[in-house]
Amino acid sequence: MGVQAHKVAVLGSTGIVGQQFVRMLDSHPYFELEALCGSQKSRGVTYEESVKWAVEENLPDKSKDIVISEVKAADFIKKGISIVFSAVPAAIAMNFEHELSQKGLWVFSNSSAYRMEPDVPIIIPEVNPDHIKLVERQIFENKGLIITNANCTTTGLSLALKPLQKFGLQSVNVTTYQALSGAGRNGLPSLDIMGNIIPFIKEEEEKVERETQKILGTMKNGQIENPETEIFATCSRVPVRNGHLLSIVATLKKDVDLEEIAKTFQNFKGIPQAMKLPTAPEIPIIIRNESDRPQPLMDVMAGSPDRARGMAVSLGRMRKKGNKIRFFALVHNTIRGAAGTCILNAELACTMRSHLNEA
Amino acid sequence: MGVQAHKVAVLGSTGIVGQQFVRMLDSHPYFELEALCGSQKSRGVTYEESVKWAVEENLPDKSKDIVISEVKAADFIKKGISIVFSAVPAAIAMNFEHELSQKGLWVFSNSSAYRMEPDVPIIIPEVNPDHIKLVERQIFENKGLIITNANCTTTGLSLALKPLQKFGLQSVNVTTYQALSGAGRNGLPSLDIMGNIIPFIKEEEEKVERETQKILGTMKNGQIENPETEIFATCSRVPVRNGHLLSIVATLKKDVDLEEIAKTFQNFKGIPQAMKLPTAPEIPIIIRNESDRPQPLMDVMAGSPDRARGMAVSLGRMRKKGNKIRFFALVHNTIRGAAGTCILNAELACTMRSHLNEA
Amino acid sequence: MGVQAHKVAVLGSTGIVGQQFVRMLDSHPYFELEALCGSQKSRGVTYEESVKWAVEENLPDKSKDIVISEVKAADFIKKGISIVFSAVPAAIAMNFEHELSQKGLWVFSNSSAYRMEPDVPIIIPEVNPDHIKLVERQIFENKGLIITNANCTTTGLSLALKPLQKFGLQSVNVTTYQALSGAGRNGLPSLDIMGNIIPFIKEEEEKVERETQKILGTMKNGQIENPETEIFATCSRVPVRNGHLLSIVATLKKDVDLEEIAKTFQNFKGIPQAMKLPTAPEIPIIIRNESDRPQPLMDVMAGSPDRARGMAVSLGRMRKKGNKIRFFALVHNTIRGAAGTCILNAELACTMRSHLNEA
Amino acid sequence: MGVQAHKVAVLGSTGIVGQQFVRMLDSHPYFELEALCGSQKSRGVTYEESVKWAVEENLPDKSKDIVISEVKAADFIKKGISIVFSAVPAAIAMNFEHELSQKGLWVFSNSSAYRMEPDVPIIIPEVNPDHIKLVERQIFENKGLIITNANCTTTGLSLALKPLQKFGLQSVNVTTYQALSGAGRNGLPSLDIMGNIIPFIKEEEEKVERETQKILGTMKNGQIENPETEIFATCSRVPVRNGHLLSIVATLKKDVDLEEIAKTFQNFKGIPQAMKLPTAPEIPIIIRNESDRPQPLMDVMAGSPDRARGMAVSLGRMRKKGNKIRFFALVHNTIRGAAGTCILNAELACTMRSHLNEA
Repeated sequence: MGVQAHKVAVLGSTGIVGQQFVRMLDSHPYFELEALCGSQKSRGVTYEESVKWAVEENLPDKSKDIVISEVKAADFIKKGISIVFSAVPAAIAMNFEHELSQKGLWVFSNSSAYRMEPDVPIIIPEVNPDHIKLVERQIFENKGLIITNANCTTTGLSLALKPLQKFGLQSVNVTTYQALSGAGRNGLPSLDIMGNIIPFIKEEEEKVERETQKILGTMKNGQIENPETEIFATCSRVPVRNGHLLSIVATLKKDVDLEEIAKTFQNFKGIPQAMKLPTAPEIPIIIRNESDRPQPLMDVMAGSPDRARGMAVSLGRMRKKGNKIRFFALVHNTIRGAAGTCILNAELACTMRSHLNEA
Repeated sequence: MGVQAHKVAVLGSTGIVGQQFVRMLDSHPYFELEALCGSQKSRGVTYEESVKWAVEENLPDKSKDIVISEVKAADFIKKGISIVFSAVPAAIAMNFEHELSQKGLWVFSNSSAYRMEPDVPIIIPEVNPDHIKLVERQIFENKGLIITNANCTTTGLSLALKPLQKFGLQSVNVTTYQALSGAGRNGLPSLDIMGNIIPFIKEEEEKVERETQKILGTMKNGQIENPETEIFATCSRVPVRNGHLLSIVATLKKDVDLEEIAKTFQNFKGIPQAMKLPTAPEIPIIIRNESDRPQPLMDVMAGSPDRARGMAVSLGRMRKKGNKIRFFALVHNTIRGAAGTCILNAELACTMRSHLNEA
Repeated sequence: MGVQAHKVAVLGSTGIVGQQFVRMLDSHPYFELEALCGSQKSRGVTYEESVKWAVEENLPDKSKDIVISEVKAADFIKKGISIVFSAVPAAIAMNFEHELSQKGLWVFSNSSAYRMEPDVPIIIPEVNPDHIKLVERQIFENKGLIITNANCTTTGLSLALKPLQKFGLQSVNVTTYQALSGAGRNGLPSLDIMGNIIPFIKEEEEKVERETQKILGTMKNGQIENPETEIFATCSRVPVRNGHLLSIVATLKKDVDLEEIAKTFQNFKGIPQAMKLPTAPEIPIIIRNESDRPQPLMDVMAGSPDRARGMAVSLGRMRKKGNKIRFFALVHNTIRGAAGTCILNAELACTMRSHLNEA
Repeated sequence: MGVQAHKVAVLGSTGIVGQQFVRMLDSHPYFELEALCGSQKSRGVTYEESVKWAVEENLPDKSKDIVISEVKAADFIKKGISIVFSAVPAAIAMNFEHELSQKGLWVFSNSSAYRMEPDVPIIIPEVNPDHIKLVERQIFENKGLIITNANCTTTGLSLALKPLQKFGLQSVNVTTYQALSGAGRNGLPSLDIMGNIIPFIKEEEEKVERETQKILGTMKNGQIENPETEIFATCSRVPVRNGHLLSIVATLKKDVDLEEIAKTFQNFKGIPQAMKLPTAPEIPIIIRNESDRPQPLMDVMAGSPDRARGMAVSLGRMRKKGNKIRFFALVHNTIRGAAGTCILNAELACTMRSHLNEA
């Protein structure tokens, strides 16, 4: 990259998504972890003492001795921090994210708090990188900004649908099998879910439907125009650790050969691949040809190189009846569906910095 | 009933569905368990020694000392057996069921072997009891007959769709969460499914699509005419012991109020309820109003009275957008979806015996 | 019994053990559920609205509309309540139980708060019914009293050891496999325990060691003298819903034939069986002769008649080397190990009421 | 190493242990995978087509196109293969291993077939490397030999006990929590074990008791003399994918301070560490100081460098009462407990080749 690493802070660092940020930012070529923030009860002690680590690989050594601190723009600026990754719940994000961006910080947020604001983009770099222009409408002093990534399920769905848009997407029906880690570190009591399915996730279906519409929308006159695609989502929780599996039925506007569709998926690449962003998977959509894949246990960490493990979406069981195509898609909910795309967004923004600064 | 109990045999008695037959036939008012058959390796020893019991409640005392025997029509007839319940795999059913019915036995089969034969009905007594007339076309000596019940998922789906037919069913999309017991007693290795989802069940989607069409069809000139309803099924295996959960999206031909639909479901009753057949649930479709039900762990045994536990289908999370309604349905796969409906079919047939004998 | 039913209150009624109290007290011949108490956040609404039901069978109809109330001795007395079943955590029990007994109420407590007090007995009616005399030392006005039952694991262990005492118990080593329900309704996050073992349960080993000593002790001069038996406990949590499995190694003081030991277990009966107390299992210790039992999934509800389901301890895999015998024992942790024994204690006390009142 | 890589074959290559061999032999500095053998039904197709991969990481590219072949000494020799790793069941090992060694091949076997033969050593290189001298008693032509590794549980137990031998080991009581992968690729039906514990593993306790005795024995006059240590094992299967957890109680001959014991464990190193064998973990016994570790999900892959992941045993929860010390030990059952130690044995033998050849 040639540029000096940006100092970054992670908000909500002890939660599952916070932990993925800490893991993925370790030895990152663009970013240097400088501050870890957490709720009042976790503050004042080291990250190692405070966190109940539950993600892939071990706790990175560099993070161990960082003392959990409060979110304070002034402190961040004093420490030379220019970028903030936020993994706090929406209600808390409301208190911080806008203020931090007003103070000139670049906020990349996994929270849903500002996603539907007209001047805040929800970016998946392979899908709608041009939406980043929305930030030109953000009237922040000192060139601060907020860029969000989508809900975990939305991210997998949008990546799976983007290549199909060229065939005309009339309507989409998705039924999900969502993993435990999506409910947070201590979110789901074992007595509720072990050997069971819970056919409800609060506000999830609404998020999936509206966020997918926004992401698949088109920039027109500085605004996003939603596509003429109906999205119906039905969401369930299943006893799987990581990986949201989606059963997708898409009605296309024309009758396209299944092989052509498969080829379209396989050839799909975006700006992160062209730019070789550090966290970009070489192949963003991997087609599994076995009869019984993708499976969460086997495919959730798909993606190469190493830094992009868990960043590829796996597709399988493609079938077709007339204009309707059906398939399964698997997305790592806390990597590609959360921290990973958020970091990829920051990589994209930093690379496009000159452009954004002119805004 | 007034009639003497019919002596019955169970084929495939040591498998999961066979076990449900043994459990549900215990102290049955119409039927008396006389013979238990099994594969060669299980024969010659008592049922208690041979079976690896894995269903609700304990092994019934009366079944314990029955010695597993071979399937032989002559032996059955000698013992006074007139009814055979079959829970053998399709390939094996091919060897026995036709022959048994030729010899005058009434065969009620859970196997898929003959389901799609034009003169063999697939009956769910609440849904299509009139299809029983198809047996008039069965040219069997001695008034033998074959009546099948549907695949487990099909049974839940058909029960959930039947009340909607009056609004016009244009198309149906179902995605399933199917329990382990559906794969048989030793069907699924624990390393494959624990903490995982397998998005494929061999031949299941095909069965669900074609059987549901046949069941929802109309008798015309002694034949079944399929309805003009598209059925799309996507089937997955989940780490749940019992209970197939279905996410159903139905496109109706007209726009109907959600409350009217709910009322239609609640008021739905069929011949088994009118006739008070022993295994009939008082309420065949139970609407759950909680936000997060039905759940396999909590609702799989729905159904009263006691003899009908597991015979009710639970519905929940009804939502609507235009002509599309969406909801979840839960069916106990080895009770309502297999042995239970098979026994209910036999109860129906015995009650209608005079009519059938005239055929 | 001939006597009128005693009105009872349940403290901590929305937790798992509280739920078992509500379930087991339904239609109880001695007791009538009059009040259900809960924490501040659950109060003021009906039990049905407040509870997250998670035990065997459905929520009893009679309990549904009871409004959760505060613990107040005066209110209890006004309502004619004479008996209180307590399922609150130890720290909370400290605030209530002593005061309630001072006001004349009979408190049967599942809490550990007072278990080790010298004048409070820990009773398992089959094991140490005579310890009930300790209450004579309780200086309570109005004849109130506190009787506790043991920790869940202790209860299974003590029942399994009692018959062996006649052979001389030198030392005991127990390693446990404890179920999720032991950690409370929302106690264990699914991400912690699914597909995992946690080899630690806070304060559990200490409780098992000291409580077992007290229960196996002998009354001497109105005090309990501990036996000369070393008890070593090692406790782990496993991903099982209900049923604590114990691997027990007991070193006897003499070399006894395995058959004699088995016979001793089988013939073991106590006062509850002699008195035919309603919740007493006909056979308190069931020997499983299969090579691979007892198993939580199959044996946890052992016990008959129906009211005593879950009240029998299942033993299996008895082996011997010299003076050391080894076996597995299984106890339903929230029935026999909590609410069930607590109710059995109340049944015992009510039957012995004349004696206790003379104290 | 300086020497050319030895060509090797893996017997039973499609099973779980066979898969670990294939994974661990990939890019091994001493060994080059040349042949993969399997049962008749898996032969003739490539390894990729035949194997149902279920271990850590992806199927190594180099193994994918190897066609599964039959076990034939002549074929091995023709291909230049000098070393055979065997992961076949005992009954099958009987047919092959002796013959292969007679033909001059070095057989390293995970099978129990020959473990208890007086001239066949069971080696854990950190524990009893000197037992390798037993092979001098093997009268094989062409300098062939058989070296076995221990049963999975035995391996963890022996590593945990070895450092304690210097304090005098009077008796040992071990209760296990054994993972699913120990039962083989398709070994345990999900209906049997999900949400359950099975307190029995066929012949496992006997193996643990006798093999641990042999491994902890002393070479005297070319024979192994068992130690004066009583070993009692109780074995159970739990719903965990990988990692056998052991609850160990050891009675020492003298009263030793817990800190001294901890230090002894921490300082424990063996010949593989001194020789820096490729698969040797830098620290073979890792002490966890947290209150609730080791846990299978978190600690099963302990061991560094990368090639030695899963080769370290984790110890925790050390407690003491008099001469009795108690602790938990965790061993990866198919790595350290099977393929890993078997490969380590081969590394040891190759390094000591000159010595062995003189035998």
